[in-house]
Amino acid sequence: MRVSEVQTPALLVNADALDRNIATMAEALPGDRLRPHVKAHKCTSLALRQAAAGHRGFTCATIRECEGMAAAGLGEDLLLANEVLDASRIGSLIEAGARVSVAVDSPETIGAAASGGVREVVIDVNVGLPRCGCAPEDAGGLADLARQQGLQVRGVMGYEGHVVGLADAAVRADRCRTAMELLLTAHADVGGDLVTAGGTGTYAMNTWATEIEAGSYALMDTAYGQLGLPFEQAAFVLAAVISSSPGWAVGNAGLKAFGMDHGNPSLADDGTVLFCSDEHVTVTPSRPVGDRLWLAPAHIDPTMAYHERLYLFSGDSVVDIWPVDLRGW
Amino acid sequence: MRVSEVQTPALLVNADALDRNIATMAEALPGDRLRPHVKAHKCTSLALRQAAAGHRGFTCATIRECEGMAAAGLGEDLLLANEVLDASRIGSLIEAGARVSVAVDSPETIGAAASGGVREVVIDVNVGLPRCGCAPEDAGGLADLARQQGLQVRGVMGYEGHVVGLADAAVRADRCRTAMELLLTAHADVGGDLVTAGGTGTYAMNTWATEIEAGSYALMDTAYGQLGLPFEQAAFVLAAVISSSPGWAVGNAGLKAFGMDHGNPSLADDGTVLFCSDEHVTVTPSRPVGDRLWLAPAHIDPTMAYHERLYLFSGDSVVDIWPVDLRGW
Repeated sequence: MRVSEVQTPALLVNADALDRNIATMAEALPGDRLRPHVKAHKCTSLALRQAAAGHRGFTCATIRECEGMAAAGLGEDLLLANEVLDASRIGSLIEAGARVSVAVDSPETIGAAASGGVREVVIDVNVGLPRCGCAPEDAGGLADLARQQGLQVRGVMGYEGHVVGLADAAVRADRCRTAMELLLTAHADVGGDLVTAGGTGTYAMNTWATEIEAGSYALMDTAYGQLGLPFEQAAFVLAAVISSSPGWAVGNAGLKAFGMDHGNPSLADDGTVLFCSDEHVTVTPSRPVGDRLWLAPAHIDPTMAYHERLYLFSGDSVVDIWPVDLRGW
Repeated sequence: MRVSEVQTPALLVNADALDRNIATMAEALPGDRLRPHVKAHKCTSLALRQAAAGHRGFTCATIRECEGMAAAGLGEDLLLANEVLDASRIGSLIEAGARVSVAVDSPETIGAAASGGVREVVIDVNVGLPRCGCAPEDAGGLADLARQQGLQVRGVMGYEGHVVGLADAAVRADRCRTAMELLLTAHADVGGDLVTAGGTGTYAMNTWATEIEAGSYALMDTAYGQLGLPFEQAAFVLAAVISSSPGWAVGNAGLKAFGMDHGNPSLADDGTVLFCSDEHVTVTPSRPVGDRLWLAPAHIDPTMAYHERLYLFSGDSVVDIWPVDLRGW
């Protein structure tokens, strides 16, 4: 199949750029130094490529991601980096032979993990992002509570999500250090082998975590593209111009093809996206009907969640079609 | 099943509010005066309710929506309100007995319709929104061209998408009139029975169109909720608080559960959404772990496209589970 034969709209991934991104990261953070986050691509076929590059453990954001990864034979060491109130589906995975550790940050989520059949947890610590995680000074007490309930505590997790996207690398590094100092304080009270943190924006500067949870590096988006990282844009939504007016053209991909929280997608070649509608993207300057538009998403994670499949291409050829099989909950 | 037993995150629809919304619209625009747009809900079970209220024709935005509607027995009079470059899948539907009319706005899309097996088209006219549609003065010539290629021309379409969301009803009505005057000019040159236009924001004031393509009225969103329309918020994403901190709480629904182009969802009861992450919503003030959050989406259409199913509820009971079966392309 040629790329020109792909029915639009479609999600296309440059196989060569993907391979280079995975290789670049595996060289910087080999083996267990990286625990790739699958939420950024939701695709077990892509995760298999990451595993082939030497990473045994993976990070998941949802129970379904854990289930899909285990079903794909990638359940050797999964971390559900999120609290859950009902861990019974995770318990079933563990019963069936997967290793799944779960983030906890409260007595309630510790209780849910223990009663659901989870055996291993990490203590989720708030390192500055107003989201999940206990106060650093509460981490030791929660670890004690978890152990009292028969859970193994593998260590601490603390995601510096308020830092990973900062434009200035020096500021990013400084804030990352501040966040990780909080996490190490908690780790001193908690114990365990794992200090898990980090993302694509801090993978190279977060030298305190024992493992980095980066995910976006594999496919990239225009937000991370502004940070000067050594990763290429590998994912595009391909649209076709279905309508052409003197001042603009309209492609057949819109709000249901792009995560929009970071703003409009960008044209990979010349031109500007004016706005998106449900199934349209209006671009300027005008182009003829039938032209193809290559659009780089502003935020990769919620973009992937809209697509059933991705077309892996090299040059002009589609070399594989991968289901985006970890969607939903 | 009780509502309290639904696993979060989940899309919940208030059956009573939905029925009232459908009844209110059917009273204002009975039968063929409304051609409900299925892009706003992507759910054939919901479309069956609209059909039961007396609407025979439906509007679709994608080929898959047409295919799903025909497969559900709702293919009596479908309008694909969008240009396509390859109409062969539509041709197959028509061959199998569905009636599908397709929007065209250029020689290329007329040619695609004719060669794909389409028999009926509408001329899509630009009435002010910089998107699809020919210039009004070109509509007659395109209709002639379509007829030369053996296509029946059912009339004109002109969506006043730049008008439907305007806050001031008087301004909205005035701009709607301006847009429809352009459409009627084109219609005079084109002929045919159909003047199809309109949306939820203009359904009551657009008295020039023969039929209105409203869709959002059935489920609603917070953007349309600001216009003072007689429709209730019927769709919610239900989340559970998985983490609680002194100043905020975190629910387990995020960027992959909400279309974000109109901004954050809103809490149906008290409180404020601070921000969304991929699988999180951070709200203030704080709430205890286990609390449920009812979140009204800011934009219903791209929200629906993230969900595999919806839970229809009445009071405390889930009365049905409907697949959101028109997703994708």
